[in-house]
Amino acid sequence: MADMVRAAVLLGPRRIEIQEFARPPVGPDHALLRVEANGICGSDVETYRGHLGKATGPLIPGHEPLGIIEEIGEQAAKRWAVVPGDRVAVEIVVPCRSCQSCLTGRYQYCRHRAVGHGVTPLSVAPGLWGGLAEYLYLSPGAILHPVDKTLPAEIAVMVNPIGAGVRWACHLGGVGIGDTVLVLGAGQRGLASVIAARAAGAGTIIVTGLSADAHKLALATEFGADHTIVVDECDTVDRVAELTDGRLADVVLELTPMATAPVTDALLAARLGGRVVLAGLKGGKEVPLRTDLIINRALTVVGAYGVDARACADAIRIIESRRFPLAKLHTHTFGLDDTALAMETLGGEVAGEAAVHVSVHPEAASC
Amino acid sequence: MADMVRAAVLLGPRRIEIQEFARPPVGPDHALLRVEANGICGSDVETYRGHLGKATGPLIPGHEPLGIIEEIGEQAAKRWAVVPGDRVAVEIVVPCRSCQSCLTGRYQYCRHRAVGHGVTPLSVAPGLWGGLAEYLYLSPGAILHPVDKTLPAEIAVMVNPIGAGVRWACHLGGVGIGDTVLVLGAGQRGLASVIAARAAGAGTIIVTGLSADAHKLALATEFGADHTIVVDECDTVDRVAELTDGRLADVVLELTPMATAPVTDALLAARLGGRVVLAGLKGGKEVPLRTDLIINRALTVVGAYGVDARACADAIRIIESRRFPLAKLHTHTFGLDDTALAMETLGGEVAGEAAVHVSVHPEAASC
Amino acid sequence: MADMVRAAVLLGPRRIEIQEFARPPVGPDHALLRVEANGICGSDVETYRGHLGKATGPLIPGHEPLGIIEEIGEQAAKRWAVVPGDRVAVEIVVPCRSCQSCLTGRYQYCRHRAVGHGVTPLSVAPGLWGGLAEYLYLSPGAILHPVDKTLPAEIAVMVNPIGAGVRWACHLGGVGIGDTVLVLGAGQRGLASVIAARAAGAGTIIVTGLSADAHKLALATEFGADHTIVVDECDTVDRVAELTDGRLADVVLELTPMATAPVTDALLAARLGGRVVLAGLKGGKEVPLRTDLIINRALTVVGAYGVDARACADAIRIIESRRFPLAKLHTHTFGLDDTALAMETLGGEVAGEAAVHVSVHPEAASC
Amino acid sequence: MADMVRAAVLLGPRRIEIQEFARPPVGPDHALLRVEANGICGSDVETYRGHLGKATGPLIPGHEPLGIIEEIGEQAAKRWAVVPGDRVAVEIVVPCRSCQSCLTGRYQYCRHRAVGHGVTPLSVAPGLWGGLAEYLYLSPGAILHPVDKTLPAEIAVMVNPIGAGVRWACHLGGVGIGDTVLVLGAGQRGLASVIAARAAGAGTIIVTGLSADAHKLALATEFGADHTIVVDECDTVDRVAELTDGRLADVVLELTPMATAPVTDALLAARLGGRVVLAGLKGGKEVPLRTDLIINRALTVVGAYGVDARACADAIRIIESRRFPLAKLHTHTFGLDDTALAMETLGGEVAGEAAVHVSVHPEAASC
Repeated sequence: MADMVRAAVLLGPRRIEIQEFARPPVGPDHALLRVEANGICGSDVETYRGHLGKATGPLIPGHEPLGIIEEIGEQAAKRWAVVPGDRVAVEIVVPCRSCQSCLTGRYQYCRHRAVGHGVTPLSVAPGLWGGLAEYLYLSPGAILHPVDKTLPAEIAVMVNPIGAGVRWACHLGGVGIGDTVLVLGAGQRGLASVIAARAAGAGTIIVTGLSADAHKLALATEFGADHTIVVDECDTVDRVAELTDGRLADVVLELTPMATAPVTDALLAARLGGRVVLAGLKGGKEVPLRTDLIINRALTVVGAYGVDARACADAIRIIESRRFPLAKLHTHTFGLDDTALAMETLGGEVAGEAAVHVSVHPEAASC
Repeated sequence: MADMVRAAVLLGPRRIEIQEFARPPVGPDHALLRVEANGICGSDVETYRGHLGKATGPLIPGHEPLGIIEEIGEQAAKRWAVVPGDRVAVEIVVPCRSCQSCLTGRYQYCRHRAVGHGVTPLSVAPGLWGGLAEYLYLSPGAILHPVDKTLPAEIAVMVNPIGAGVRWACHLGGVGIGDTVLVLGAGQRGLASVIAARAAGAGTIIVTGLSADAHKLALATEFGADHTIVVDECDTVDRVAELTDGRLADVVLELTPMATAPVTDALLAARLGGRVVLAGLKGGKEVPLRTDLIINRALTVVGAYGVDARACADAIRIIESRRFPLAKLHTHTFGLDDTALAMETLGGEVAGEAAVHVSVHPEAASC
Repeated sequence: MADMVRAAVLLGPRRIEIQEFARPPVGPDHALLRVEANGICGSDVETYRGHLGKATGPLIPGHEPLGIIEEIGEQAAKRWAVVPGDRVAVEIVVPCRSCQSCLTGRYQYCRHRAVGHGVTPLSVAPGLWGGLAEYLYLSPGAILHPVDKTLPAEIAVMVNPIGAGVRWACHLGGVGIGDTVLVLGAGQRGLASVIAARAAGAGTIIVTGLSADAHKLALATEFGADHTIVVDECDTVDRVAELTDGRLADVVLELTPMATAPVTDALLAARLGGRVVLAGLKGGKEVPLRTDLIINRALTVVGAYGVDARACADAIRIIESRRFPLAKLHTHTFGLDDTALAMETLGGEVAGEAAVHVSVHPEAASC
Repeated sequence: MADMVRAAVLLGPRRIEIQEFARPPVGPDHALLRVEANGICGSDVETYRGHLGKATGPLIPGHEPLGIIEEIGEQAAKRWAVVPGDRVAVEIVVPCRSCQSCLTGRYQYCRHRAVGHGVTPLSVAPGLWGGLAEYLYLSPGAILHPVDKTLPAEIAVMVNPIGAGVRWACHLGGVGIGDTVLVLGAGQRGLASVIAARAAGAGTIIVTGLSADAHKLALATEFGADHTIVVDECDTVDRVAELTDGRLADVVLELTPMATAPVTDALLAARLGGRVVLAGLKGGKEVPLRTDLIINRALTVVGAYGVDARACADAIRIIESRRFPLAKLHTHTFGLDDTALAMETLGGEVAGEAAVHVSVHPEAASC
């Protein structure tokens, strides 16, 4: 058991450096997680590029950690009901657990949280707050979900993206048996939404993507999409109308980052009384929107704000059921030293690489 | 019992003419309603001004009719469970009652409806489709709600506006005990929303209006608003934050017609996880909207599409309970010959008149 | 096109007679359905045996009709949006479509309905109210669901039982992704519930049955049940606890007719905060029940009252998706002359026959 | 500040003794509450009488404490966001805050909780777990709700009973605008349910009680009940049918302890599709119940399992709004030395005393 912990530190836009930290002592209410893998998501790439807000100082990124409980305090073991050797996935949010939001199951709205995994700077002791490190420090408010140890780490680590799919398609979108679901965007989260919608009994699933996303659209089909639309080749709304005999979609998920036109497409492609889930951030841009559409079509538009414990639990049930060929989602595994490359690969900056799910495994050799 | 029926016919923008029609025969599946009163709403004024869409030919306006069953066919009496002499309020929508939308209680999404009260042209026989007439023709799909005959007609006719308040604040907004409710707009519907929110146990109710709406804001207070905001004197969102100690509103109702800025105010004044109900049509205009707010604040935005049977029933319960001083809402009664004046009065075009609830009573003498 | 209509008439307990009726004229608001098949359900068997209430006179049984529109009035064609030659499944309930229950999507609570398919006596003209006949008379309130004509009739006719499974497991039971579902009873409806729960993403499905039901339990496994419990060989609740590591079931469906012990099993096998759906009628018997269990376990117990349009629509989506091998559910096809035999076969009175889904096809030759 | 803490200890059935305990030290994660008042509820009386289950050893009863933060650790102050001098009401449940139930807002189903206020024996250090003492020890999982300090303690302490009314009538019963609500039982919780139903906009409220409960029924009327039924003078169900013109109740709350007949009354008095909330424990007795009623009437029967944070928050909003004359609910204040008398007074064992709300104020002089 090493005394030092290696970690990838983000110093500024596109500046990642491997640093070593003293392994912190573990108090009665805390634990230390040996990271097996940490999934990379689109927001990590944007943070790496410096596109998401003001830096609060150097930090260890990584908010999708999976690992093994290495050391744990007595009270912590009791509270989390885990022992050393257990495998767990960790949520990004570390809520206060005491405010009205926390007590009523909406801990994502907790205003008292002090730290979050992958977003807290090194300056907050002991600094090991991100999954892109050999060890992650677990403070009392952390949320852990046990995961089957016999699954490959690159599959077991998919709790967060699959959880997003479940929350967006099922919990917020309300996808039910036979529903027609339109997913705008064929990235990791879009494909996870296809999986979730299919698991929940959707009837017809339609996914959009760019012609450059052909491999993702092919994957969408493999995971259960009935139709794909290449958005640079035809009009999305017209095509949805055609595919559904004019009935349009019961549920629309808008997952495209930065693009504003798909928001209007989402409103136009939803049936009267349909639901639209928004999860594609636009960097704060104003979207010109005919809000009368929301009124005249009696739509419900829901903002998708991360994942929660219910979604993670459902995601784990899907992953552990082994009913979906999730290995096909996983395209790239990197060692800790290649963290920057992992970001760039998912970001589509590496010629010849068509990435979908990318994870960093601190114990893996670098390429 | 007259052979002829007098009605106000809208020939084009600001062109209303009183015409006479032969009283139609009533078949076994139909009925004839003697109109006691017909409420005027903002959309009537916009139609009168020619602002709402393409005309489909002359028609009798009026979609908030209240009246007495004058004549009714045998099957119709059985179906509606009413007899001549009963007082009923009539909904605008005349749905097919057979499609999946109708069968699942969402008849407002019915795509098979052929007529609607106050919107069907004279060219569809027998022409008497609007409430601004001595008699209204009731076809089999019409939706009737019995109302207490001992109430004054100008109160009993409030089923539609109070129903809108109930649907928007309670059914769509989900106002519950102790909730903070922000109502943007102090018109007839805004005041009805105050009444509905108060009836449902809201904690704090805040209403906005222009300084020119002082009389409406005073009424809002009388009906239970805790605070009013004069929007041309301060910033709405700042003031809401101040009034709620930064907690913002659980439910926001955006009811202002044509203005686009209040939509952004609505998103900014809602708490994390709050609900925003949109009912203020903008004439199809594009509203520049930071949709990231919906995501980052985990909002649910609902389009308010008219009133339905459940809302009408709840409205009638509120009206018949006599718990609110509804007479104070009613400001103007007109005879049929003064229909144009009724429109202009509600539209604020008549100097010195501060109108809130305006109704036309075909049997009343004109001024 | 025949002038006379052959029909199976139930004269009294176990007395079925084939009679001929004049083919009724079809008015503008009505239709005539050529029956292709009519499914037999457990309640039909109980009625045949005389166990269910007082007879109101001879009638044509059959409340699960599937057929082809043979003749239809002009208004009826418009209302139902069907034309001669279309295949439709027909619901049992013929609601008024005008009362508050009907308008709010709860037409099964309609108190004004005068007729129902398979339950209205011959004395109500024109008498052809049941599906066990060559033709079914469709009155204006009837509810029709179009079904794919390319499906075999014995599969297409499963709208009602699959619809019951959908309503009980999904709409009332709320089965979601990963849920543990316990189905007490492995009859036609129990198997349909397995299908519905599987379609909705259930995690673990457990089905109980008697050792004599081995063939049904085998079918349950084939349709997606993970475990079966033979109730005369072990304690149901103990076994559920064992299979779920003490977590018990998220949703329990109690579908056994007449037996009272399973109701207590249902309460004991549900997890804290779980849902229990009751659909097994007990002939009005008092069940000795520790209602404290409902309180202390914070259960929600829901009475399952038939099928509705939403469930039928979902059932049709499942049937038309061809994702489940429904042909394996179907065990027996009979001609109209063998209606009594059909009842007895489903009732388990015919030695050597293990029936699950039984239907009568009026055009089929009798055995 | 005293070194010793006086507390009422329940040694066995009807054996309460005042004992002194060393004031415990307060760690960084804990606090000490100076008890102002502790409400007595029916279950306290049953425990005092020895009717509720096996004793686990001597304990300090009292699960409805209200008090002032006297001393608090640094982490605890941060977590609960309170400082010394703040007034808070404390919930009975002390959940783990980490399991899936806790994370999804259903902490009452938490299986990991070790202590509970008023139910944990002295043998669990430091023993001060009940509200019937000068000080209550607050462990990290305790749930605190700030309450307005300007309210009299006997009103401010009503968070638990009013919270029960809110949860049972509104959150579980779903009472909405205009609903007809039947409350079976006119005790403290029954009256609180009347208040909650009235606050939520109920239309007609009907309350039952014994002729001996005349004073409670009079209070029910004062708090907004429209009708009362004296159950030993007429048939409850017949009377409800009469009062509602046969429409019966939308929501029925069954709150009578030990009596089994009201459960059947509850099922019979609910309308088709109505909701029945069960909160009256029957000491584990089997209730002979026609469960077919639940099916044929399409009822939803919900077990009411205590109060939760959402209900407490709503209760505090009702209490702080000062809209209801809650002082009329409060009938008796006792000092700590009279704890046994407080139990007997609420239990109706003291001739001439008609108790409704009874509280023990440790600082009050005894009678």
